[in-house]
Amino acid sequence: MSDHLISYDQLTDFTRSVFRHIGCNADDTALATRALLAADLRGIDSHGVARLSGYIRLWEVGRVNATPDIRVIHQTPSTAVIDGDRGLGLIVASRAMDIARENAKQVGTGWVSVQNSNHFGIAAFHAMQALEDDMIGWAMTNASPLVAPTFSKDRLLGTNPICVAAPAGEEPPFVADLATTTAANGKLEILQRKNSAAPTGWVQDAEGNSTTDPNILKSGGALLPLGGDRDHGSHKGYALGAIVDLFSALLSGANYAPWVPPFPAYVPMPVQQPGKGIGHFIGAMRVDAFRSVEEYKLHMDQWIRGFRAAQPIRPGQHVLVPGDPEREAEQARRQKGIPLSTGIVEELNALASRLGLPDLP
Amino acid sequence: MSDHLISYDQLTDFTRSVFRHIGCNADDTALATRALLAADLRGIDSHGVARLSGYIRLWEVGRVNATPDIRVIHQTPSTAVIDGDRGLGLIVASRAMDIARENAKQVGTGWVSVQNSNHFGIAAFHAMQALEDDMIGWAMTNASPLVAPTFSKDRLLGTNPICVAAPAGEEPPFVADLATTTAANGKLEILQRKNSAAPTGWVQDAEGNSTTDPNILKSGGALLPLGGDRDHGSHKGYALGAIVDLFSALLSGANYAPWVPPFPAYVPMPVQQPGKGIGHFIGAMRVDAFRSVEEYKLHMDQWIRGFRAAQPIRPGQHVLVPGDPEREAEQARRQKGIPLSTGIVEELNALASRLGLPDLP
Repeated sequence: MSDHLISYDQLTDFTRSVFRHIGCNADDTALATRALLAADLRGIDSHGVARLSGYIRLWEVGRVNATPDIRVIHQTPSTAVIDGDRGLGLIVASRAMDIARENAKQVGTGWVSVQNSNHFGIAAFHAMQALEDDMIGWAMTNASPLVAPTFSKDRLLGTNPICVAAPAGEEPPFVADLATTTAANGKLEILQRKNSAAPTGWVQDAEGNSTTDPNILKSGGALLPLGGDRDHGSHKGYALGAIVDLFSALLSGANYAPWVPPFPAYVPMPVQQPGKGIGHFIGAMRVDAFRSVEEYKLHMDQWIRGFRAAQPIRPGQHVLVPGDPEREAEQARRQKGIPLSTGIVEELNALASRLGLPDLP
Repeated sequence: MSDHLISYDQLTDFTRSVFRHIGCNADDTALATRALLAADLRGIDSHGVARLSGYIRLWEVGRVNATPDIRVIHQTPSTAVIDGDRGLGLIVASRAMDIARENAKQVGTGWVSVQNSNHFGIAAFHAMQALEDDMIGWAMTNASPLVAPTFSKDRLLGTNPICVAAPAGEEPPFVADLATTTAANGKLEILQRKNSAAPTGWVQDAEGNSTTDPNILKSGGALLPLGGDRDHGSHKGYALGAIVDLFSALLSGANYAPWVPPFPAYVPMPVQQPGKGIGHFIGAMRVDAFRSVEEYKLHMDQWIRGFRAAQPIRPGQHVLVPGDPEREAEQARRQKGIPLSTGIVEELNALASRLGLPDLP
């Protein structure tokens, strides 16, 4: 399973051709491609082109609308709810962030809850848009149920990530993007491919017993909330995942808890549908709605430098500031190219030939 | 160490006499008492009257101002920064929530970052104020550094809690109030008193090694971020604690990271003071800024009932909704009284006699 290297520009061309093929207009094609490939650039391989075929299958079964009419259905000066009209989450969440930034310009902060959307890629892409305006960005999304709340066998929550992106001055921005589970599903998929055991505290089996089997989700097991078990604070991870569900779906009218539509198009949709599509929650806060940008940046740089300078436990393994590993991955991958496994290359070429498009270079 | 039972009303009278003694006016006395005892009622024994002597010692050394002039120093329609003028956090955070609610009434949401404050008791007390207006409440605070970020020996963050309180319809509200560490410091104090080992993943020693010694903080050890270690997601707990610090202090001008003033009055203040006092972050979001309250409550009830009805792993140990244990504690304690350990009773009576006030009944 050796890695193929492909340049960001080549992968951009390929991905654009796919989104164009399903009928996205020029702007949406460019935006969806940029949002999707942000994951590949930042080293979150589970959320980039590895999911492109999955998005297209959702379009093929009619669950993704390539020409959505994204509408504001409720608003106040600092809030909005938008109906994503089954558009790609990659696009819908970006539009939500545009509205949040506009509201923040007017009244200091903007908060947009989104219904009737689909998978939005990595949360960081959306949250980071706010950085351009010296704003702090938030992005959350609910997701199909793979996570059991503390004390239960049932899968009732998604990996429901939270991202907060905050600007700094001379230092790079602080970007925390975290699934509210011990480990994101993508981490588990890596272990499946390597046939390695998962650390305890990542998953449980169908009966709720602790297990290290990385394939256990295929036989009724569940991911565990951040913390792993009650003694180690899993009730906190569960509460955080629940908060994401409330903001993304209970405020917007999207589906929630076990009723969030599954990502794989072949998995049947839940029979009961208390809402529409999946939900996101997007926020933007103008720094200068609180304090002068200059003062804030001065202290933010000092904060960041303080953490970087902390005494390491092991020599050479220094404290990271949230966003560091992803930024380093992006620098390397923009220069050297993006590594794709043989499996992904084959999948993408199969997709291309199915759609009558050229293979990857 | 048998428990003494004391009624809520008796404990209220006692606590009020103490706050009155240090010069709080009638309104502040009533408010500070209600905020402090919310912890005792809700079963968070570490944050209630057990800290009363500590608050008074801070007043004695001049770090708490009993007659603060709490002022808005920066604002937009949806935001404010307030200077707490070294007031009791119990009072300052409540005032911040009043402003957040007022902003939310005007423009949908309100967000207040607070500088120059002190320990605010339990976050849930402040966040829950928003429930009265059918709003979702947020409360965060930074705290003195006891927590080491992933890969470091140094204590750079407090237990930095996050609380979100969201109303429901017929069901009681959802109230998640969580320290961003594996276990709150209060949990560790319980083990110290019982001389029991802590689970692995709660603390590390001064060299950063895993340990189960609950007294390790007294010899340079540190609490661990939620997750415990890198394999179990401690970088996520660290990121969450960092987010609380950014919102509470970097936005307000309070002290942050290792420079947050210590709670015990005998611990020397940090030499460097990049800000003022400790910081909080308070938010209020009108539900009807997103959706009709009626629809929201219908779905929130369904969400809550779905979780309560989840299949338990062990018979009888059902899934809890965040806020359940605390609400049950409050019901029991309002009826039967609040249990105080002999140590706490002695400490409170020593405080009373030092201030020339009557003992506990």
